[in-house]
Amino acid sequence: MLIFAMRVAHEGCEVHTKGKGTYEITRQVQEKIDKCRIDSGTVTIFVQHTSCSLTMMENAAPAARRDMERFFEQLVPETANYEHDEEGPDDMPSHIRMVLTRTSETIPIVDGKLQLGTWQGIFLFEHRRDPHRRKVSLTIIGE
Amino acid sequence: MLIFAMRVAHEGCEVHTKGKGTYEITRQVQEKIDKCRIDSGTVTIFVQHTSCSLTMMENAAPAARRDMERFFEQLVPETANYEHDEEGPDDMPSHIRMVLTRTSETIPIVDGKLQLGTWQGIFLFEHRRDPHRRKVSLTIIGE
Amino acid sequence: MLIFAMRVAHEGCEVHTKGKGTYEITRQVQEKIDKCRIDSGTVTIFVQHTSCSLTMMENAAPAARRDMERFFEQLVPETANYEHDEEGPDDMPSHIRMVLTRTSETIPIVDGKLQLGTWQGIFLFEHRRDPHRRKVSLTIIGE
Repeated sequence: MLIFAMRVAHEGCEVHTKGKGTYEITRQVQEKIDKCRIDSGTVTIFVQHTSCSLTMMENAAPAARRDMERFFEQLVPETANYEHDEEGPDDMPSHIRMVLTRTSETIPIVDGKLQLGTWQGIFLFEHRRDPHRRKVSLTIIGE
Repeated sequence: MLIFAMRVAHEGCEVHTKGKGTYEITRQVQEKIDKCRIDSGTVTIFVQHTSCSLTMMENAAPAARRDMERFFEQLVPETANYEHDEEGPDDMPSHIRMVLTRTSETIPIVDGKLQLGTWQGIFLFEHRRDPHRRKVSLTIIGE
Repeated sequence: MLIFAMRVAHEGCEVHTKGKGTYEITRQVQEKIDKCRIDSGTVTIFVQHTSCSLTMMENAAPAARRDMERFFEQLVPETANYEHDEEGPDDMPSHIRMVLTRTSETIPIVDGKLQLGTWQGIFLFEHRRDPHRRKVSLTIIGE
């Protein structure tokens, strides 16, 4: 008799950003799933910041990501008159863009692989101009 | 002594869309929970696409959904000048509308039922004009 | 030999809102995790409504929250001409603001604590003018 016991594995990855933009982390997430040998379950990706966020996005066409990034520049402009501006013009827009996108995302794992669609990639969306080291926590639950 | 062992069940449903709009999937999700006989836990709903998305929405008033859909038509217009436009004017807006809504949603299951509020429905939000077959993955974790 | 058995705990909290704005619930969520003694896993926070939502936000600077709330007042104005307006001018904007933010959020639990970043707080985002009693469901899965 085989027993597949459910368990939890905590992993993490650090993303070194070089200013505003989207940074794909799909491969790093898959590597952590491989490492903890959970075949069936879910991974919860959680960004531990309020000035960057997560998004799923088309991963084949860089132009699609550029259009998406431009959309957010216009929707949440740096030039608006914000009350909270201690850290510069990109401070407050970074929080609003985070609120409009995602902090956590939960993705199925089937046969040890992220069950993504053909064109789906997982991206950290950096909203600050300066380089940052961003902490992304991964919680893998399954058997 | 009763042992309620935790387990994972993977299910899925296919949604045949007929163009832009919201398509309720609450009943299909509940049927898959019934099928796998997990009484207590969560279901993670994950859309395997980047040109449609998920949203929770008021499920009693169709006018509320029409207003919401019109809002997105105006916020992310097809007529903007996008760099990525290979697949027509609804291509790039579909990705941006997906980024502004959700790809995954995790909902509690209590006594075998989705623990939704009275007026909450789960909707696939189609952002393309043409009919599509959309794959929605369901991961049910619990006991 | 120690066995850490995975399990599910369902908890909930009620948030008494006094009109539009953000209400921090981080402490209540942590207290429920403490109560159910799950050391390692995830908590899924789920708002059982379609006219309020969840958001992560900077929890130190109230000005940042005010700017964020003003942004949504402008992005989804009460003065637009909505078809669905039975419950007043804040009715339809509340649904759209909910769609643009979040209904569920899943957060890691490590050593019994929410694994949040330094400045991250969990907020209920009330979109209606009148006071409401809002139900937030918490599902804690882990060992």
